[in-house]
Amino acid sequence: MTVSASPADLVKYLAAVGHAPKIVDFGGAPAAPAAAAPKAPKPPKAPKAPKAPKPPQAPQAGGRNKKGSKETLDRIVASKAGDFATWYGEVITKSEMIEYGKISGCYILRPWSFGIWEQIQKAFDGWIKDEPLEVENCYFPLFVTKGALEAEEDHVDGFAPEVAWVTRSGDSELAEPIAIRPTSETIMYPEFAKWLRSHRDLPLKLNQWCSVVRWEFKYPTPFLRSREFLWQEGHTAHYELAEADAMVYAILGLYKKVYEDLLAVPVIPGTKTEKEKFAGGLRTTTVEAYIDGSGRAIQGATSHNLGQNFGKIYGIEVESADGSGGKRVPWQTSWGLTTRSIGVMVMVHSDDQGLVLPPRVAPVQVVVIPIISKACPLAELQGFVDSVKAELKAAGLRVRVDDRGNQSPGWKYNHWEQKGVPLRVEVGPRDAAAQSVMAVRRVDGGKKALPLAGLGAALAAELDDVHAAMFAKAKAARDAKLVRVTDWADFVPKLNENNLILTPWCDPADQDAEEAVKDKSRTEALEALGLDDEDARTATSLAAKTLCVPHDQPPLPAGTKCFFTGKPATCWCLWGRSY
Amino acid sequence: MTVSASPADLVKYLAAVGHAPKIVDFGGAPAAPAAAAPKAPKPPKAPKAPKAPKPPQAPQAGGRNKKGSKETLDRIVASKAGDFATWYGEVITKSEMIEYGKISGCYILRPWSFGIWEQIQKAFDGWIKDEPLEVENCYFPLFVTKGALEAEEDHVDGFAPEVAWVTRSGDSELAEPIAIRPTSETIMYPEFAKWLRSHRDLPLKLNQWCSVVRWEFKYPTPFLRSREFLWQEGHTAHYELAEADAMVYAILGLYKKVYEDLLAVPVIPGTKTEKEKFAGGLRTTTVEAYIDGSGRAIQGATSHNLGQNFGKIYGIEVESADGSGGKRVPWQTSWGLTTRSIGVMVMVHSDDQGLVLPPRVAPVQVVVIPIISKACPLAELQGFVDSVKAELKAAGLRVRVDDRGNQSPGWKYNHWEQKGVPLRVEVGPRDAAAQSVMAVRRVDGGKKALPLAGLGAALAAELDDVHAAMFAKAKAARDAKLVRVTDWADFVPKLNENNLILTPWCDPADQDAEEAVKDKSRTEALEALGLDDEDARTATSLAAKTLCVPHDQPPLPAGTKCFFTGKPATCWCLWGRSY
Repeated sequence: MTVSASPADLVKYLAAVGHAPKIVDFGGAPAAPAAAAPKAPKPPKAPKAPKAPKPPQAPQAGGRNKKGSKETLDRIVASKAGDFATWYGEVITKSEMIEYGKISGCYILRPWSFGIWEQIQKAFDGWIKDEPLEVENCYFPLFVTKGALEAEEDHVDGFAPEVAWVTRSGDSELAEPIAIRPTSETIMYPEFAKWLRSHRDLPLKLNQWCSVVRWEFKYPTPFLRSREFLWQEGHTAHYELAEADAMVYAILGLYKKVYEDLLAVPVIPGTKTEKEKFAGGLRTTTVEAYIDGSGRAIQGATSHNLGQNFGKIYGIEVESADGSGGKRVPWQTSWGLTTRSIGVMVMVHSDDQGLVLPPRVAPVQVVVIPIISKACPLAELQGFVDSVKAELKAAGLRVRVDDRGNQSPGWKYNHWEQKGVPLRVEVGPRDAAAQSVMAVRRVDGGKKALPLAGLGAALAAELDDVHAAMFAKAKAARDAKLVRVTDWADFVPKLNENNLILTPWCDPADQDAEEAVKDKSRTEALEALGLDDEDARTATSLAAKTLCVPHDQPPLPAGTKCFFTGKPATCWCLWGRSY
Repeated sequence: MTVSASPADLVKYLAAVGHAPKIVDFGGAPAAPAAAAPKAPKPPKAPKAPKAPKPPQAPQAGGRNKKGSKETLDRIVASKAGDFATWYGEVITKSEMIEYGKISGCYILRPWSFGIWEQIQKAFDGWIKDEPLEVENCYFPLFVTKGALEAEEDHVDGFAPEVAWVTRSGDSELAEPIAIRPTSETIMYPEFAKWLRSHRDLPLKLNQWCSVVRWEFKYPTPFLRSREFLWQEGHTAHYELAEADAMVYAILGLYKKVYEDLLAVPVIPGTKTEKEKFAGGLRTTTVEAYIDGSGRAIQGATSHNLGQNFGKIYGIEVESADGSGGKRVPWQTSWGLTTRSIGVMVMVHSDDQGLVLPPRVAPVQVVVIPIISKACPLAELQGFVDSVKAELKAAGLRVRVDDRGNQSPGWKYNHWEQKGVPLRVEVGPRDAAAQSVMAVRRVDGGKKALPLAGLGAALAAELDDVHAAMFAKAKAARDAKLVRVTDWADFVPKLNENNLILTPWCDPADQDAEEAVKDKSRTEALEALGLDDEDARTATSLAAKTLCVPHDQPPLPAGTKCFFTGKPATCWCLWGRSY
């Protein structure tokens, strides 16, 4: 057989890449495709997947339109205000971002969400590779030996309960179990010890994009908490502590930029308390976001100064720069941004119609919909539609034309709204005649007629405006929930109103005091809400925890007392209920 | 403390990203970096890694210049002609491409090799996303359930012995072991069954960039055979068999393009015999390369037509397009290109001085070396060096300036030659005065004086010429070893001369005949080389195997007999010893 039946453009393409299709067909190949294939056998029974998590609810298989195509997205039933967890589950599955796979806590990132991750990757990867940061990408193995993993005590205590262990290959037991990376400090730093000899070898700045595995037993939530997730992890070593701090802060600045300039989500940069810092590190900085729909804070991304701790454990040292022949343990940093960021973005912006995508990461920024009808078939509009597409592509916009003949324009509006495309461009016969289009914004339904001439630049500006509108809306919602409390009496009531709370705090290194606030806030919240301990066990956590000591500190008048201990306050600390 | 000690440009950068460095330093942080840190404790004893593989040899730790910095690359001792395996091991470690980690068969891709992978990714990813292929990227989980993995019998037989199993998380045994993907057919296709309903849902074209794990017990070799490796895996579903074939061939054409147009390695496209095809598929196409230094062929990348087999197993079917209400099982393809390609590139091009990188994937294409001396300090050349760098960057070249003050120009020449940078640009005081530079090619040492005006375009053209020279050299070496044999009597002698052998063949589906050639060629090769079976067990395989039925078939005169069975020949088949 030949490929003459294949689409003409594909055949042209084959020729263009210098590869003429001469198919070699040996025994065993069926003669030709049957017009209707024989009924497929039932798939063998797969073992039952572990129970699906409660929040958010996976959509019922029965909810799917069996007769329709994938093009037929089910409408979202739950409301954001009414049942946030169910709403979230519907939004991410019905927009084709996420599919629930066979293993609990592991999710499939379909092109509609992976495309967003690719936009984040492209931007962040460029920023860290550029001067002055000049980080280089690399790839370290997925596996770590037991010995290397367990060398740093605090670190292993932090991760051990969640580590997945490989103990067998084929039918053979491994001589010693090996772990799948929950993070790569313990894999990378023994190698740093081989590479770093002289102060001239510093700084060393590496990054990798990969997946990591943390086998958590809390309720998994797509994007926010999954057993495997995608991230970047950066690892650097420096001669001076100050350089390590500068690196940590530079990266934190970029994480803020990812959230605010790409995802249109406002964040609060700050430093974690001793209790909440990275296991084994010196200090952890963070950007904290707020999910208005659930009234909870969420850690957006963290950048750690690891100090010299790992260096001492793994024997990293360099000849010092002063010519004394002495040695120095370098100062290290590590920092990570995960696919959680996509979940935060969805939760913050989306609405009861579905996704609302921030323009700078949307896989499709503009969808062009020709208003086809019996009176006006596609052929009549094709020329104008092609011009519109060419104009938008030339402006560097990510554009898709939906010219399917089997769906109405109205159906398509709903479809692309549910998928969150920032701008819809409607092109009807009158538009074609006037050489103009109608542009409609997903975020607020705003409409604008725009001429074809200069359309690319006009829509690029419109997308920037959409971004600004989304950020302003999210920031207003977050700011409305950001309060200051100086007396304990106000703390739990404000917490029960889903606020983020800034309080004067005695000591971010005092873990006992922090634990006491946590306990007391939980007890008082239970009381105030009329719940008993049994309810609380099934509810998500009601306790307040510290989110960070914000870097942008309000003035702290001399003599201010800690809202809880009454000792002198040293800073403002941010508290909230958190994911 | 503040970051005033940090490099001025980093501080400027922090301000530029709108993030002023206000470091919050809690208890537990050391006051300031000690000029000389206390001696680091010995790292705890890690469990002994399994024995290092023989071919290629990991460099001895003692060979490392302990006093020097990482900048001091050890020279390569073994020769390519004399001891290929040792030479390869030295080339990839001493150029800083590879580090041997703690787990046997898992290698660390340092920036110098990962940067090459990034170039391959960027090119191939663009090609498959563009029209007309329009493949979309996604991410499926690392894990697969036992049930899904084992559903397709041939497929599981092919992979089962090499599958790594997770059986524990933390201290808990999992209810059922889960496998780490050796490839993702069994993870993806159950989901295809959910998504595909109508003929309108086709084609579905997905791809992911990830790592896979195959716990092999053959000698591992960095890049060529490792227990974890990076790849892309594409998976598509089509309504017509012909469309699936066209997809398979389009991708095979792109794989040829990766090898020939990016890596400057000639390949032979063809179809695998039934014996060598992908387990569970219908037919497998391949591009086959040849490693002159070892006299062995190697599979470069494969593109499979899976037929309807997996579709039937996993219950994938769509409403047919003819309106009959009937169902059809789609025709599927899968295709993969791995980091093996980097190893092939290294083996084909490199020499006794070290790496020789093809320009289109080299992380650094041009290294600029100012000829600094006491008489001419860097400051005097800086202006001209900056102009050269700016000119090359403007031309889109990947350029690095090596202006280190602690190494001589001669030392730097050696350093960058060993790392394989395609072009070196020397800039001395006379060059600066004449506004010209001296360009030197790594591949053949060719030198050329070039004016600064138009230098970017001139060097871009030079890089294309270097590519062409490398490809021509590799093709000549390969073609010198490509012979035709029509009588069995000539087969093993030609095999022992490390040839690739084209023979008339009776039937690519006849697995018994192929097995007989394999056995007989091994026995006769042992005899001819004066080896006994005991030697053979420790040597690498001496048997011939089929590489492919090349798509570019020489004429096969009527009446030609199979070189082995004497039956009528149906095609020319390519044989060789292979990795």
